[in-house]
Amino acid sequence: MVDNEDLLQRISERYKKMSKGQKLIADYILNNYDKAAFMTASKIGQKVGVSESTVVRFANMLGYEGYPQLQKALQEVIRNKLTTVQRIEMTSELDESTLLKTVSKMDINNIRLTVEEIDKEVFNRVVERIFSARSIYVLGLRSAAPLAQFMGYYLSFIFEKVRVVTSGVNDILEQLIHIQPQDLLIGISFPRYARRTVEAMAFAKNKGAETVAITDSLLSPLTSYADHILLARSDMASFVDSLVAPLSLINALIVAVGIRKKTDISSDFQELERIWDEYQVYIGKDRS
Amino acid sequence: MVDNEDLLQRISERYKKMSKGQKLIADYILNNYDKAAFMTASKIGQKVGVSESTVVRFANMLGYEGYPQLQKALQEVIRNKLTTVQRIEMTSELDESTLLKTVSKMDINNIRLTVEEIDKEVFNRVVERIFSARSIYVLGLRSAAPLAQFMGYYLSFIFEKVRVVTSGVNDILEQLIHIQPQDLLIGISFPRYARRTVEAMAFAKNKGAETVAITDSLLSPLTSYADHILLARSDMASFVDSLVAPLSLINALIVAVGIRKKTDISSDFQELERIWDEYQVYIGKDRS
Amino acid sequence: MVDNEDLLQRISERYKKMSKGQKLIADYILNNYDKAAFMTASKIGQKVGVSESTVVRFANMLGYEGYPQLQKALQEVIRNKLTTVQRIEMTSELDESTLLKTVSKMDINNIRLTVEEIDKEVFNRVVERIFSARSIYVLGLRSAAPLAQFMGYYLSFIFEKVRVVTSGVNDILEQLIHIQPQDLLIGISFPRYARRTVEAMAFAKNKGAETVAITDSLLSPLTSYADHILLARSDMASFVDSLVAPLSLINALIVAVGIRKKTDISSDFQELERIWDEYQVYIGKDRS
Amino acid sequence: MVDNEDLLQRISERYKKMSKGQKLIADYILNNYDKAAFMTASKIGQKVGVSESTVVRFANMLGYEGYPQLQKALQEVIRNKLTTVQRIEMTSELDESTLLKTVSKMDINNIRLTVEEIDKEVFNRVVERIFSARSIYVLGLRSAAPLAQFMGYYLSFIFEKVRVVTSGVNDILEQLIHIQPQDLLIGISFPRYARRTVEAMAFAKNKGAETVAITDSLLSPLTSYADHILLARSDMASFVDSLVAPLSLINALIVAVGIRKKTDISSDFQELERIWDEYQVYIGKDRS
Repeated sequence: MVDNEDLLQRISERYKKMSKGQKLIADYILNNYDKAAFMTASKIGQKVGVSESTVVRFANMLGYEGYPQLQKALQEVIRNKLTTVQRIEMTSELDESTLLKTVSKMDINNIRLTVEEIDKEVFNRVVERIFSARSIYVLGLRSAAPLAQFMGYYLSFIFEKVRVVTSGVNDILEQLIHIQPQDLLIGISFPRYARRTVEAMAFAKNKGAETVAITDSLLSPLTSYADHILLARSDMASFVDSLVAPLSLINALIVAVGIRKKTDISSDFQELERIWDEYQVYIGKDRS
Repeated sequence: MVDNEDLLQRISERYKKMSKGQKLIADYILNNYDKAAFMTASKIGQKVGVSESTVVRFANMLGYEGYPQLQKALQEVIRNKLTTVQRIEMTSELDESTLLKTVSKMDINNIRLTVEEIDKEVFNRVVERIFSARSIYVLGLRSAAPLAQFMGYYLSFIFEKVRVVTSGVNDILEQLIHIQPQDLLIGISFPRYARRTVEAMAFAKNKGAETVAITDSLLSPLTSYADHILLARSDMASFVDSLVAPLSLINALIVAVGIRKKTDISSDFQELERIWDEYQVYIGKDRS
Repeated sequence: MVDNEDLLQRISERYKKMSKGQKLIADYILNNYDKAAFMTASKIGQKVGVSESTVVRFANMLGYEGYPQLQKALQEVIRNKLTTVQRIEMTSELDESTLLKTVSKMDINNIRLTVEEIDKEVFNRVVERIFSARSIYVLGLRSAAPLAQFMGYYLSFIFEKVRVVTSGVNDILEQLIHIQPQDLLIGISFPRYARRTVEAMAFAKNKGAETVAITDSLLSPLTSYADHILLARSDMASFVDSLVAPLSLINALIVAVGIRKKTDISSDFQELERIWDEYQVYIGKDRS
Repeated sequence: MVDNEDLLQRISERYKKMSKGQKLIADYILNNYDKAAFMTASKIGQKVGVSESTVVRFANMLGYEGYPQLQKALQEVIRNKLTTVQRIEMTSELDESTLLKTVSKMDINNIRLTVEEIDKEVFNRVVERIFSARSIYVLGLRSAAPLAQFMGYYLSFIFEKVRVVTSGVNDILEQLIHIQPQDLLIGISFPRYARRTVEAMAFAKNKGAETVAITDSLLSPLTSYADHILLARSDMASFVDSLVAPLSLINALIVAVGIRKKTDISSDFQELERIWDEYQVYIGKDRS
């Protein structure tokens, strides 16, 4: 896999050795990567006055199989480069009257792509590790904190060994200070990736723990420290991170755990049910 | 609107005055409401040996326009009656190999129905109230806490006046003790409805505050205390509440607020951007 | 031990069989227990026109060794009976100009009495149990939450097995759902005792766990469910619970644990020190 | 005021110009500041073979009025220089059998000195500002978080305008993003001072807000950004920060606020009392 972080830098470094046509492409991309990321090879060719195949070879030269791979890499660069202010600018182009439809369409599309692209073997392996781990740390910071909290909320009914790490009086790494090789850290992060989440993944890996990254792309900084990678789409043309597809994936993970542990959790929940009833935690249960 | 809470009781009370055919239907429903809730009128007719139109008239007699309304009411009854243990039983019938697809299909369907059914005027009015309110309390407990937290996370970048109520050292009502008539309480709850959320809505209403319910149905106990009702689907054949469609709706709400406040939040976020940069909160922003 | 909860009721029940002098005392106490609680036997005698020894016999008749025991019981009744509104009334009699001195004097006195009265064997046994327990739950709600948080903050540096229970998305009892016989629950509560703390102690005891109560008196409702009782004074003529002496006691507990685990925690903290240094958690460490 | 942070460095810088006797003292201090900090002038003189008055002049030369001031400065240096590992070493010299007495004596002494040294005018001004401020932020991180939480717990019954900042899904500075000139930030920090608390004080000051530091010494890094300084002693020969005297001071602050707002809070608490009663928050209130 080519490291996209330095894509723009790599283009700069190879600039000297480029053909004249390649230099034109390079100039355009370096100055307009935000636009280039959404143009086809032929469009870029037109723009700078070279052939489509020159653009394709430009991609090859940088180590990509074809232009689509280069384009995707550019999009990744953008995603991390966009400040929230730029995202708000983008948001303002959304039409308020069709907003709900637009947002829901993006969310539905994100879920659909997530299911299509998920690696089922990894999914099953993660479910297994959730059972076999000594301790499970579910970590999500900032906008990913609600996802970690949701996952922890359900898993802690089923297992004693769950610890949710979202914030707290102790710093994040302090909450991981006792992590061990038999433990599992499930790190959740989506663009813009919180630095401390990456640090926590690195810390856990370094201590020998097994790590799962729930993130949006192989280019996410979490993947460098992840034994298992579960990808969920979070594309959203807005300053809000859409965590709808990630939440759907986490739902499926919890349900998969629940199915395997069925008999055990039934008895756990029978006790909870008794408690909920005694303390009237829920409303609307028939008492007749 | 017919009160479904007592549907089974109402059937019992009218039993004496029913025709012989109606009694057969009543017997079947009272003993098998969990199955009946998912059968068509003709199927029930077959089961107990009466005509489809007898089943329809049975629904009319109970105050429903047609059989679909009775069926929906039965489903509501079930939803609140099902203990988590029963939900786990249901979960176990899910096929593990197709689990991800099943869950994602339900989630996509929930989002789709949510957008179709949403009342846009209410949606817009809620956006307006978020701007005009003196203070905004975003309240969600138990599995709805992550939703409240997510909504609060973004709204508190934009407004000072936001308070997230999910748990805390002070009890829930204590956190609402200063609520006033010009304030807005956004209460989020899905089956199984947390009792304390309903109490909080009632408390806020009683203090003269304006209230928004983000919930799953007009039959939700929150609606009794809500000035504005935003419905999002959360059907999920499992012990996990699916909050995917509610999250998508909340996304849309935040984006709608962001669009209207564009210029202001741009400057807020410029300052945040500076802070994030100085303290390296995020990873991957280009520093070259 | 005589149950003080029903002291006033017991007085009422025995009223019929009392001598004429005793009836006078009973009348006075039932109507003015808030004043009587702070009067000497001779003062009460004067007030109602009986001898001091009649007052003492009155105490004996109710099952107390002497008048001081009855007086203490009356003070306990008051402490739990006083609403916060009544406490505020009391507060208003404090002199603002000497406030700091008054508060600090009460706090110093509370610490002094706490050390004098502490049962050292119990103290040592609790330290031992902290080491030997499988899991340690440190529970404090409402105004006692900061104490639990403080204790948990330090203990969780030393042990992995610590869980702080102060509030949270999961209800209190849900956070204790996996508690077992080898576990230790340290419950912290001072007047006005939070009901849910008592429920949690009862729940843990019922599940076979070992329990420690850090509370103010043997009459505290926590003691019924406690294997070990550590008393700390919290008397404060105000609507604020003074948790200064309890905090001092908790300090001593943490230090005692630290002394015994010296070598181990040195290495834990060496790692923490490295982390704190790398992430500049603290200020002012010499880097030359 | 002399800046102690660089005391050791200043000694090094002036070394060249020192007399022979002063050089002997300087050598000893630079190599043994942890011991020197607890030696008298005459003891140091003996140690290095110079007169007591040479030691005193050494202090004068560095800008201190006398030796006691230099000694105090050295102790400050130590306090911040001591890693937790070194503190644990110190702790191990405490005698376990007299531990409780030792800890409580230090705590009592800390409270006594705190009251003696407090500036009453500052105390009263802070109470006034708590009333007049538009919003009040109570901030304490790490081991100071329980203090902030305790203070916030009570103040938020009395005022709506209180926000407790101890941790959270939003970063600390993000929670202060809306702070304004009419607002009050009460920052609480004791050695080892959390870096983020100092950053938060600086941030608030920079935004024009009024700031209060509750800290242990004029040499605390918080004081640079504080409009009002309230000092409370926290000396403790251990890895645990003793927050007993600071808690006593905070108690007094809350009570002082309560006394002034008496009538208003009575009615607030009457409503709370009704809520507490209805939801049985507390135990032991007489219901007869």
